[in-house]
Amino acid sequence: MASVIQIPLQIRFGDIDSYGHVNNVTYLQYLEDARVQLTHTPLGQAAGAGAGPEQTFHDLVGPDLFTLVGRHEIEYLAPLVFRPEPVYVNIWVTQLGGSSFEFGYTVTEKDGSVVYAQASSSMVLVSRSTGRPVRLDGPQRHALETWLGENVPFRRRPASARPAAVAAAITS
Amino acid sequence: MASVIQIPLQIRFGDIDSYGHVNNVTYLQYLEDARVQLTHTPLGQAAGAGAGPEQTFHDLVGPDLFTLVGRHEIEYLAPLVFRPEPVYVNIWVTQLGGSSFEFGYTVTEKDGSVVYAQASSSMVLVSRSTGRPVRLDGPQRHALETWLGENVPFRRRPASARPAAVAAAITS
Amino acid sequence: MASVIQIPLQIRFGDIDSYGHVNNVTYLQYLEDARVQLTHTPLGQAAGAGAGPEQTFHDLVGPDLFTLVGRHEIEYLAPLVFRPEPVYVNIWVTQLGGSSFEFGYTVTEKDGSVVYAQASSSMVLVSRSTGRPVRLDGPQRHALETWLGENVPFRRRPASARPAAVAAAITS
Amino acid sequence: MASVIQIPLQIRFGDIDSYGHVNNVTYLQYLEDARVQLTHTPLGQAAGAGAGPEQTFHDLVGPDLFTLVGRHEIEYLAPLVFRPEPVYVNIWVTQLGGSSFEFGYTVTEKDGSVVYAQASSSMVLVSRSTGRPVRLDGPQRHALETWLGENVPFRRRPASARPAAVAAAITS
Repeated sequence: MASVIQIPLQIRFGDIDSYGHVNNVTYLQYLEDARVQLTHTPLGQAAGAGAGPEQTFHDLVGPDLFTLVGRHEIEYLAPLVFRPEPVYVNIWVTQLGGSSFEFGYTVTEKDGSVVYAQASSSMVLVSRSTGRPVRLDGPQRHALETWLGENVPFRRRPASARPAAVAAAITS
Repeated sequence: MASVIQIPLQIRFGDIDSYGHVNNVTYLQYLEDARVQLTHTPLGQAAGAGAGPEQTFHDLVGPDLFTLVGRHEIEYLAPLVFRPEPVYVNIWVTQLGGSSFEFGYTVTEKDGSVVYAQASSSMVLVSRSTGRPVRLDGPQRHALETWLGENVPFRRRPASARPAAVAAAITS
Repeated sequence: MASVIQIPLQIRFGDIDSYGHVNNVTYLQYLEDARVQLTHTPLGQAAGAGAGPEQTFHDLVGPDLFTLVGRHEIEYLAPLVFRPEPVYVNIWVTQLGGSSFEFGYTVTEKDGSVVYAQASSSMVLVSRSTGRPVRLDGPQRHALETWLGENVPFRRRPASARPAAVAAAITS
Repeated sequence: MASVIQIPLQIRFGDIDSYGHVNNVTYLQYLEDARVQLTHTPLGQAAGAGAGPEQTFHDLVGPDLFTLVGRHEIEYLAPLVFRPEPVYVNIWVTQLGGSSFEFGYTVTEKDGSVVYAQASSSMVLVSRSTGRPVRLDGPQRHALETWLGENVPFRRRPASARPAAVAAAITS
């Protein structure tokens, strides 16, 4: 998927818990930093609809608005241990609404040979002054569309979150 | 729900991010500590099938096994700011399988008057030596059944995670 | 020492590092939360010079000023492991200057039977608008004087930080 | 100083506190990661006395021993804000004893143009089985000597930690 951006993230000693692995909570921090790195890096090819390639998505959001996390979903697929080399978060956009959008992620080796986790986050563009959602404008929408890719192929959704037919088959 | 255990958690200054709110990642740490407090507290009324009330769920798991997080899902419903008083995590069991189970949570004021977040976590009982899932035994199952309650009423699941009929209605 | 305030702090699972102990960095967060709890609790007997007992030190500092950490010194004396019960930070004031002061701390069991660490922090009162130090006023000084106690009895200061005679003997 | 190793460290969004700066506690985590990166990187020119250049200091310590933090001292000199670019920790050895040694650090821009903090840490080599200090052996000592440099020029040590003559002048 050409739309996926890959962000290297340093593992910290403090990320490792008493089980000897990167703690499950820390992965959410990796996702946060992937979002922040993506939105603080010049848009490049994601620029358009009036935005220049040297601008960042953070610039497009501006000081009066901010993006709020509405929801996270994450599956842990393999344990990750400390090493001096970074781990990689692949980040893209999976859904695009009026004032909201969704990021998809995988946490992997650089070459994708191991997938440690996959996740998604629902984001809402909100006004600082009113606290209310605000519609994505043209340049924001253009950037997010450039990053648009497939839904995250979650495999561990419980029956209560699965499509009705599948859920029925499992619980019957 | 009589099966819900309420755990007070101190908010730390370091939980607050540059937006002035408890950071979204930190909520996952609150959930972790609710799980750990629950499983390190004497079972009391959750004891049975051979386990005594002074034992903890952590005792029942023993040194050879551990519980692994397979999945988290969390919705953020209201911003939480710093205060010296604790916030409360209500924790219960929503699903019970052969070697896995699911915790449900709400993060609230003590009296439930504000719900800051709701979440669920899939847990798997795993052997340290083999790394493989292990079936829950009688005392473990008895404790988890005592804590059993309803599914978390998630409201922000994306179309891709909703029952088929509802998803169809939305996307059509 | 009557001037010492004791603050209970919950240990989090995430405070434990891969060595199985509360990580050395986390102790600094405990100190921070002891400072914040102290300064967000009504002054009570530390009120005076115009401040009321229901006010907090945080109230006395007000929105235009803040206290900045200039320096920390900490000695680790015993390892601390996870338990559901809190650990206690004892906090007091060791030095009082024109616009600066110093906190002393011990991290202990409630009854002081084990001392896990001892530490001190230099604090400076600073103006948000100018970024410059500001003189402590009467009510602030009164509260800090109420909390005044002895210097922390550090035992592991290196030669370079010891009184000149001792240092001379070592380096000659 | 040729003995100083420079370690780039990614700033995380979660490092920023509600004052909008890298939190004072987080600097200690940066120091920890500088130590860990230094000790997990091949020795190169620090190899000797039997150790090969492809070995790490972590290898020389081996599984039966570990290094314990005995003490930290840190001075904060300038506020650090979020940016996608790393900050740099410069790390070297300031003291070398029988079973202990001391790291010195500065946290700076790559070119040293801004110094955000300076710090030192006392480390002790300890046996996992006995919990007792263990003498540094030849290869360990050789590596640490290669990294040896000057003491950290602390400027904010309180009177109680300053050489006697100066302290006397201040307190008289």
